[in-house]
Amino acid sequence: MALVERQVRNGAEESGKRATKLVLVVTKDTLDQVYPPLILATTAAASGLEVDVYFTFWGLKLLDRRSHRKTKLASVGNPALPMPNILGMLPGMTAVTTSMMQRKIKKYWPTIPEMMLQAKEMGVRFHACSPTMGLMGIRKEDLIPQTDDIVGASTFLDWATSPGTATIFV
Amino acid sequence: MALVERQVRNGAEESGKRATKLVLVVTKDTLDQVYPPLILATTAAASGLEVDVYFTFWGLKLLDRRSHRKTKLASVGNPALPMPNILGMLPGMTAVTTSMMQRKIKKYWPTIPEMMLQAKEMGVRFHACSPTMGLMGIRKEDLIPQTDDIVGASTFLDWATSPGTATIFV
Amino acid sequence: MALVERQVRNGAEESGKRATKLVLVVTKDTLDQVYPPLILATTAAASGLEVDVYFTFWGLKLLDRRSHRKTKLASVGNPALPMPNILGMLPGMTAVTTSMMQRKIKKYWPTIPEMMLQAKEMGVRFHACSPTMGLMGIRKEDLIPQTDDIVGASTFLDWATSPGTATIFV
Repeated sequence: MALVERQVRNGAEESGKRATKLVLVVTKDTLDQVYPPLILATTAAASGLEVDVYFTFWGLKLLDRRSHRKTKLASVGNPALPMPNILGMLPGMTAVTTSMMQRKIKKYWPTIPEMMLQAKEMGVRFHACSPTMGLMGIRKEDLIPQTDDIVGASTFLDWATSPGTATIFV
Repeated sequence: MALVERQVRNGAEESGKRATKLVLVVTKDTLDQVYPPLILATTAAASGLEVDVYFTFWGLKLLDRRSHRKTKLASVGNPALPMPNILGMLPGMTAVTTSMMQRKIKKYWPTIPEMMLQAKEMGVRFHACSPTMGLMGIRKEDLIPQTDDIVGASTFLDWATSPGTATIFV
Repeated sequence: MALVERQVRNGAEESGKRATKLVLVVTKDTLDQVYPPLILATTAAASGLEVDVYFTFWGLKLLDRRSHRKTKLASVGNPALPMPNILGMLPGMTAVTTSMMQRKIKKYWPTIPEMMLQAKEMGVRFHACSPTMGLMGIRKEDLIPQTDDIVGASTFLDWATSPGTATIFV
């Protein structure tokens, strides 16, 4: 690798090229699991990376116009929440934790639909996972117009194994 | 990098080689967290990739003959489910959501034990994480015969840092 | 790539260099989601890898002195636990599953604060995610002294796309 240019960073010598593409996989549709990939997607696009987001399983709900604006936060099963499970399981508590979290998030970021629009404007591509669409009860006509295409696991793997790609599975 | 062959894909110039190995880490044992890595494992193997699946923490239950056929779906803590937590927490509801999901899944994929057999026939390797076996109460003799070996975190890291490898942690 | 040294491993010919850096992202703060990245961090550091751990969202609680010693295990929503949700949601059950798990873990690993100290002594760097600190109600002065710095998503992406880096998102 003598011909490869060297760069010194963090005190370590490195060779090879920096990744120029980011592939994000979104498999959940709760507020706390959707913001991280969307923040990464917009930040990466702003830095000039090519960004593909693959929505699969519950993550597909974000591309479904019926659930696109309804991302929630689970009210039970998360010991980090300031709420015991016995309260969290009561009817309406998912709505309570969701709106608590949304109020806090609003100080820092746009809503999820707004962030998705922003990402699209920056060139981020949104892909629906074909093999899980049926499972999630989502048809082609349910998809929001920001969806670029419907692709399968082999296309995703093709991206993930492509040279110069960092893949993050959320 | 002048000597490296160039390829044009997605409109971007790239250099370097495509990854030829996929390392999957399975840390959960719920239906919705097990199908994604198994779908990726079989798809990748079908495309000629070398595939290693590392089962650790709850994921080890898939290699345990006592729980191998009993993967469930959580009935609470997932706001995407069409069931409020107050119902989800009732006795038997994990079985209800599990069988609802299994019925849907059956239209698209084999069962998990079937997919694991299929993956093995395609050359996918299954590894049990040694440091978490004791924690999960699993002994060597509990492992299904499809388990290739019992290895530790340093072996896993050896794979994950190996050239030409894409690693996905689920 | 003719000049690149070849190595034969797992029967496959490879070219390119092994990754020398590991970037771990910790987004949750439950026992079962914190041990895997900490085990990987210490194992990687022991093998001579450069290790950066990025704590974000619930993961930030590990860098907060007020919650640093209080990592719990969820008592509901995990069908792998030997406890039905109807019990798991009762007051105090999070404490019960947490201490059950902690007792088991103690046979294999140090506590989380101990492992974090160990990791620091081995040169692992701990980073707090600036954009989620406010969201989690954490101020600079709440951070444990083991925190190296407070950085944003673009710094994280800079690491993740750096040559010779393996990134694992937990």
